[in-house]
Order: sequence, then structure tokens, then C-alpha cells
Amino acid sequence: MYRAKIEVSLKQGHSDPEGEMTAQSLKELKFSAKKVNVSKVYIVVFEAESKQKAEEAVEGMCRKLLANPTKDNYSYVIEEEK
Amino acid sequence: MYRAKIEVSLKQGHSDPEGEMTAQSLKELKFSAKKVNVSKVYIVVFEAESKQKAEEAVEGMCRKLLANPTKDNYSYVIEEEK
Repeated sequence: MYRAKIEVSLKQGHSDPEGEMTAQSLKELKFSAKKVNVSKVYIVVFEAESKQKAEEAVEGMCRKLLANPTKDNYSYVIEEEK
Repeated sequence: MYRAKIEVSLKQGHSDPEGEMTAQSLKELKFSAKKVNVSKVYIVVFEAESKQKAEEAVEGMCRKLLANPTKDNYSYVIEEEK
């Protein structure tokens, strides 16, 4: 069994309305907040035959579902679970 | 200027409908996915007088806005930006 931690964040230059709203709310609460960006982390537990197959699977998950290649960057770490 | 990377995730036992939907979608795409959990990462750039003040600010941001103490865990790392 493998466990992937996949972080999906917006590419620079793409607008981040959730980050902007969060910055606004922080300011209203009297916190200093110059800039906020929001990204998502998916922890996926899955089966694969080998570390290499696990990496191929995670690449596929990112490209087909979790990240939008036009506007998102993604990165991940994969660990084998005993 | 400081830069905090704050990760907010659901406490164990709380339902994660977005994670469940993601697992379902991955299965429909023929990926193995036993379990998916989704968490959020906020990158906050802000001003503070000292590292200690920066930590106090981030604790406040988490408690007052970013995390729900009933159902969320949060963790963060803070770096000073030059």
C-alpha cells in the first residue's frame, strides 16, 4: 500500500479568489496579511505493484483529476505503507 | 516580513465528503484509491515585529478564521522573508 501527499497550487499569475477573500477577512480581524494563497493537499492511500508504478499512478491522478494543467502546479511525495 | 505555511486538516473521525468524492472519481478513472483526505494550505505573507509576534499572529489566524477548533487540526511553519 502506498500513501501519496499531493499538493496542488495555482500557478503564478492566476487569480486566487479564495486567497484574496481570506486576506480580506484576516485584515478585518486586524491581522496583517499582505498576501494569501490557498492550495489543496490530497492524501491518497492506494495500491500499486512497485514504487515506479505508484509514481505513474500519482502522475495520472494529478493530470486526469486533481490538477488543471492550465492553471495548477502540483508536487507530491509518495511513501510505502507497511 | 514573514511567510507562514499553514496546513488545516480534518481531525480523525470527522467526515470528509470532498475526500470521499475524490476517491470515488479516482475509482471511476480506474485508479486504485482506498482512501482520500483533503486538507488546505494557506500561504500567508504578513508583517510582524519579531518571530515570537509572528507565531502569536499565526496562532490567532488559525483559531479565529482558518481552522474550526471542533473539527480541524492545524500546523504551520513560519519563515522570515528578506
